Amino acid sequence: MTTLETTSENRAFGGVQGVYTHASAETGTDMTFAVYVPPHEPGTKLPVLWYLSGLTCTHANVMEKGEYRAACARHGIIFVAPDTSPRGDDVPDAQDEYDFGKGAGFYLDATREPWARHYRMRSYIERELPELVAANFQVDMARQGITGHSMGGHGALTIGLRNPDRFRSVSAFAPIVAPSQVPWGEKALPRYLGDDRKAWREYDAVALIEDGARVAELLVDQGTADNFLTEQLQTERLETACREAGIAADIRMQEGYDHSYYFISTFMADHIDWHAERLG
Amino acid sequence: MTTLETTSENRAFGGVQGVYTHASAETGTDMTFAVYVPPHEPGTKLPVLWYLSGLTCTHANVMEKGEYRAACARHGIIFVAPDTSPRGDDVPDAQDEYDFGKGAGFYLDATREPWARHYRMRSYIERELPELVAANFQVDMARQGITGHSMGGHGALTIGLRNPDRFRSVSAFAPIVAPSQVPWGEKALPRYLGDDRKAWREYDAVALIEDGARVAELLVDQGTADNFLTEQLQTERLETACREAGIAADIRMQEGYDHSYYFISTFMADHIDWHAERLG
Repeated sequence: MTTLETTSENRAFGGVQGVYTHASAETGTDMTFAVYVPPHEPGTKLPVLWYLSGLTCTHANVMEKGEYRAACARHGIIFVAPDTSPRGDDVPDAQDEYDFGKGAGFYLDATREPWARHYRMRSYIERELPELVAANFQVDMARQGITGHSMGGHGALTIGLRNPDRFRSVSAFAPIVAPSQVPWGEKALPRYLGDDRKAWREYDAVALIEDGARVAELLVDQGTADNFLTEQLQTERLETACREAGIAADIRMQEGYDHSYYFISTFMADHIDWHAERLG
Repeated sequence: MTTLETTSENRAFGGVQGVYTHASAETGTDMTFAVYVPPHEPGTKLPVLWYLSGLTCTHANVMEKGEYRAACARHGIIFVAPDTSPRGDDVPDAQDEYDFGKGAGFYLDATREPWARHYRMRSYIERELPELVAANFQVDMARQGITGHSMGGHGALTIGLRNPDRFRSVSAFAPIVAPSQVPWGEKALPRYLGDDRKAWREYDAVALIEDGARVAELLVDQGTADNFLTEQLQTERLETACREAGIAADIRMQEGYDHSYYFISTFMADHIDWHAERLG
């Protein structure tokens, strides 16, 4: 039985914004995550929206800057924000690289040394953390949605595409849609997974769609003034893949918005409204 | 003519969240402040809401965690968030004291050395910054409101009470209501102003009301789980003063809320709605 340690709990929008730590078997480290539980009738089980963060982030960025609590309180949705990588002194890191190592787990299970032992964010998000959340919060695991930003948008899309039975709704903010084909992924994927590009495809939303993975629909917001759009994000690759696969993707190019939480917070309530419709 | 340097501008909720720096004559330092300009018709002048921050804060805390932009965009209100003290290597500070010196200007004009030269936050907020804002943004200076948190709630109440012709609306989150009578003020006021308690009264909302200062009404939110409530905030002193003075004070004790931005962000939209009604 995993013990959950409460780091902090603050009343917010009639509910509780909590931060919790536990010993993770998958990553072999302590892991910290944030959960917002909205006001609700005692005993009712609530739908849950997972939010995966981007490069350099922890659970805290969206908790402080994401502006999700008002909408989650209105709809009665639990919001879970995990960390982006294993942490701790015994976890190998790439010093001075913001886009690899700690803070840059890419939501995959690494197979190459020295990363394979701790960098297991895929299994952590797909298996271990959901079990922990189900055991400790009033969640209805039949009603899950997933979203995320940038590297976390990549996480949301790939995890959503690989687990269509688990998630009723998948959206993303400024996601990396095809890491195999852009510098961030071309740097990280071989070091975590080796040089065989076939092994990268299950961690690439566009490749997953090309290989037959399907969700009914997607919502994506992308700022036109995002510095990473042309080189790293390449949203048009997702548009093409969805069109060819018959996925109803609502990909909204948002004029003048950048890659920051000013952009995310602007459209957060839209996304939560959209997930709420699908989570019932 | 004061030059305003743009530190950053980010599109948010259809408007622009900016951060600006200028050389302040009052403080004798560079000063940084944040301004959110909501979407609006070109050429229209907008009402402005001032937000004063608490101990240890800069302009950035409310900008990142305050969740004010959605409501300001809805009402068409400009939101200005100044810093809490002068900054820079040549500004005297009290090292290791979070509640005095930098980050703790208490919105007063210091008269004692070594503080008198730079610690002039009263004149900065009452005179210099409004002129700068009026000259550089599309504000209607006939429609100003003011609010703030903790030490900034003290700032909002005292500046509002001393300038009833300037502000149509005054509110506060967890304000220090009577600094002359609580440890934070008993520590800071003699060092900034000297030992004569008469000089403290214009920097004490309850004393100002006792001495005849008036506003028509006030809105105050205060969390019941706020660690500072009993010793430092003593909200009941404001209730008593307003009752005796005939000020219509809506002082709302919010069950279970603490002193953090989780509390502030929860009630921010309420305050902005309330100011918007009064700013027309």
